[in-house]
Amino acid sequence: MHRCIKINSADNVAVAINHIGKGTVVIDGVSARNDIPQGHKIALEEIPEGSPIIRYGVILGYALQDIRKGDWVNENMLELPPTPDVTRMTFGTRAGWDFHHTPPKTTFEGYRNPKGGFAGTRNILAITTTVQCVAGVLNIAVDRIRREILPKYPNVDDVIPINHAYGCGVAIDAPDAVIPIRAIKNLLDNTNFGGEIMVVALGCEKLTVDRILGDQDNNGGNVIVLQELEGFDAMIRAVMEMAERKLARLNERRRETLPLSDLCIGIQCGGSDAFSGITSNPAAGFAADLLVKAGATVLFSEVTEVRDGVHILAERCVSEEVCKKLGNEMAWYDNYLNKGQVDRSANPTPGNKKGGLSNIVEKAMGSITKSGTSPIVEVLAPGEKPGRKGLIFAATPASDFVCGAMQLASGITLQVFTTGRGTPYGLAAAPVIKVSSRTSLKNIWNDLIDIDAGTIATGESTIEEKGMELFDYIVRVASGEARPAAEKYRIANDLCIFNPAPVT
Amino acid sequence: MHRCIKINSADNVAVAINHIGKGTVVIDGVSARNDIPQGHKIALEEIPEGSPIIRYGVILGYALQDIRKGDWVNENMLELPPTPDVTRMTFGTRAGWDFHHTPPKTTFEGYRNPKGGFAGTRNILAITTTVQCVAGVLNIAVDRIRREILPKYPNVDDVIPINHAYGCGVAIDAPDAVIPIRAIKNLLDNTNFGGEIMVVALGCEKLTVDRILGDQDNNGGNVIVLQELEGFDAMIRAVMEMAERKLARLNERRRETLPLSDLCIGIQCGGSDAFSGITSNPAAGFAADLLVKAGATVLFSEVTEVRDGVHILAERCVSEEVCKKLGNEMAWYDNYLNKGQVDRSANPTPGNKKGGLSNIVEKAMGSITKSGTSPIVEVLAPGEKPGRKGLIFAATPASDFVCGAMQLASGITLQVFTTGRGTPYGLAAAPVIKVSSRTSLKNIWNDLIDIDAGTIATGESTIEEKGMELFDYIVRVASGEARPAAEKYRIANDLCIFNPAPVT
Repeated sequence: MHRCIKINSADNVAVAINHIGKGTVVIDGVSARNDIPQGHKIALEEIPEGSPIIRYGVILGYALQDIRKGDWVNENMLELPPTPDVTRMTFGTRAGWDFHHTPPKTTFEGYRNPKGGFAGTRNILAITTTVQCVAGVLNIAVDRIRREILPKYPNVDDVIPINHAYGCGVAIDAPDAVIPIRAIKNLLDNTNFGGEIMVVALGCEKLTVDRILGDQDNNGGNVIVLQELEGFDAMIRAVMEMAERKLARLNERRRETLPLSDLCIGIQCGGSDAFSGITSNPAAGFAADLLVKAGATVLFSEVTEVRDGVHILAERCVSEEVCKKLGNEMAWYDNYLNKGQVDRSANPTPGNKKGGLSNIVEKAMGSITKSGTSPIVEVLAPGEKPGRKGLIFAATPASDFVCGAMQLASGITLQVFTTGRGTPYGLAAAPVIKVSSRTSLKNIWNDLIDIDAGTIATGESTIEEKGMELFDYIVRVASGEARPAAEKYRIANDLCIFNPAPVT
Repeated sequence: MHRCIKINSADNVAVAINHIGKGTVVIDGVSARNDIPQGHKIALEEIPEGSPIIRYGVILGYALQDIRKGDWVNENMLELPPTPDVTRMTFGTRAGWDFHHTPPKTTFEGYRNPKGGFAGTRNILAITTTVQCVAGVLNIAVDRIRREILPKYPNVDDVIPINHAYGCGVAIDAPDAVIPIRAIKNLLDNTNFGGEIMVVALGCEKLTVDRILGDQDNNGGNVIVLQELEGFDAMIRAVMEMAERKLARLNERRRETLPLSDLCIGIQCGGSDAFSGITSNPAAGFAADLLVKAGATVLFSEVTEVRDGVHILAERCVSEEVCKKLGNEMAWYDNYLNKGQVDRSANPTPGNKKGGLSNIVEKAMGSITKSGTSPIVEVLAPGEKPGRKGLIFAATPASDFVCGAMQLASGITLQVFTTGRGTPYGLAAAPVIKVSSRTSLKNIWNDLIDIDAGTIATGESTIEEKGMELFDYIVRVASGEARPAAEKYRIANDLCIFNPAPVT
């Protein structure tokens, strides 16, 4: 009977597929000495105090006490190993292609980008703001546009405000201010917005329009400055009139058959559990490998969740330059956390721990599996746009909603989101596909989970099968042939741009 | 003719009431040597390089070049003086009562707080979230509650989601995490929410419900955990059902005549210009003095905007303890800015400068005038609740939307917002009264500005008259007899909680 999963032959712990009662024989010669919760670890051999606890073939930590064969190994029983040194990493040793499957499809139906580059998966009018001050007025205008104008333009999927907490009351010249400014500037260009630029500014904010728009775009055809308008009614009228002109143009867009090399998607995980690294993340990694092989661009992120496995990512970097940037992004984040008097141990959530993830090393190893096995061709600082195609590490915080906003800024037009504990997360600017790590989550959240990878743990399906299913679904969602749950219900989180610089 | 305003007899500059053409005689013996924009400064005497430039009787900075009598004095012509040392401030020397006017009213019609303490000015159902993850689902539920349920409960003013960017993907144990956690916890208790507690949580977030609710409130009657519910429809149903129970109770609330000592309001300024310190802010200060004299509590804030005048605030502190806390809050912020490699000079915005404010000293002196002349009885760290009644300095960032959120957390139920350049800012949780510093703003934004204090500059009205008018309007708005523009149009900014700790 399939009671627990051992991933690597070197592992001295395995993960319980379901709750294991005390006394149950889990593997030949190992019977549970305690009740083991679902997703939690059981010791497969005696682990004396100070000895390594090994999963994924790597050291998760060192035993803080003698652990007996069959014991439940929980987060209080191991000590974190030292963080990998990012200044001395080996690169390129695993940057070849181990992946020999052929993508079943190499095209999708997308919206060609009028400016070149990646293609869109949706046709959305985005109204960007320079500052939070204008959000109240813009939201009212957007509500009216959705009700009164959008129905006249059936080829347009939505009208969304790009509201954020940035723009004023911030240290705009702080070294780290480059991050939120770049993010807002690049977000404008997300190809799901069809090259139509519309900005609502206040007039006295620090994030002046010229910081986010080039000279050719910074004009009265694209920019509304509220302080120049005669009151509230005039503001609403101006926004609605400009929106209608943009909607008329967006309405002319049509999908065309495009190569998958025109697609750029993001992958992230949130509310992870111990199954994430065995089921949903490897399946996502398989789909990512298929996409990359078909020429597509796939971004993965979450610095604090790869930090402890970064040496493994370094081996997959295609060049010294890429490896160096990977190290730099890690070092930047180490320093950022230091300034806040915390470290990487701040990452796992109570939910992660409940789900069986003992610490950040275990979480990192599971997190990394969603990147598949492709070579890493580029590393992006938060909110930067890709310069190459293929698998890319886009450095962002691991916070789901911050990662989502920053990946959108980097240009993704669709996101795959794997989850163990479950979150109803969604993005207004791109469809989000939810993949569950456990069938029990799919069962309870049947209308919110798009694909259940939990069947991998029970042996009902393989990573390859689920990866193929996900690849197929990604292409169909990208082509507008399917709508994942978050899109169907219009569940969208706030756009939480990463601002590591001070508020003033 | 009234062309410019000199505030203090020691001043060597005055401020242009309107644009002054080159060659115009502005005061006996002074004619403009350049065109002087509205709100900008003109030199009243020769100011040699290195000499102080004086306004409000304080040194704004030192001349970087020889300035001739009649010259336009702009932000490029003066150097910042050193920041006041917060470790050695004199306190209490001006903590008496200079203010001898009698409040024309000492009661208002408010909602008594079932838990005691300050009374509400509005009757709102607030649905608090523990984490941004749930915001997408909650927003959908709130839309439906507003349309389908709220109309049945006519005594309730609104239903609002307390969404924020906090709750997970954050360093919850960082020293500075105390600020956002306290803010969310205290926000729940804002008396405009009538003591009804309703929290929507996810289930695996770092900001667990017990961090914001006490044992007596943390139960199924007040808390919905999305991960425990069977999918999207069940979530929407659960939120709507709980909301209806809360609405039924809130609907029983009635206004009663209460002493003004039950009222707690906030004052802030945003989009300031050189008139703010002469017109709208002194008028707000006069109204604040009347309120405090009537027993009310008035919060003013914005650390970076008082930093350079803090020694003047120290003189108004009633005790050494209050003065010490004032210094501590300034020192904390100095350190916070230092870590981000910026300083107080990051504050004035391009709009401030266009409006004639040369630097942060000039902005601070104008900003402080809105606190009136009352003794400062308490200093609050960001998001703390008052322990005393009277005039209180509540330390918050100067960012309008962050200050608004943090003053709400400290318990204000109404805000007075003075503005020179103009912003359509609003809060969902409390009415915001907008006071313009210039009549030209009121003329262009007639439907957004509630009170024009610009007539003080032209001599058409006095600070006392405008202060009385504002006091009367505050009492009427607090009593539900008047609705300011932002409330009428339902203009509300996002709730931007101050989080100085790292995102993970």
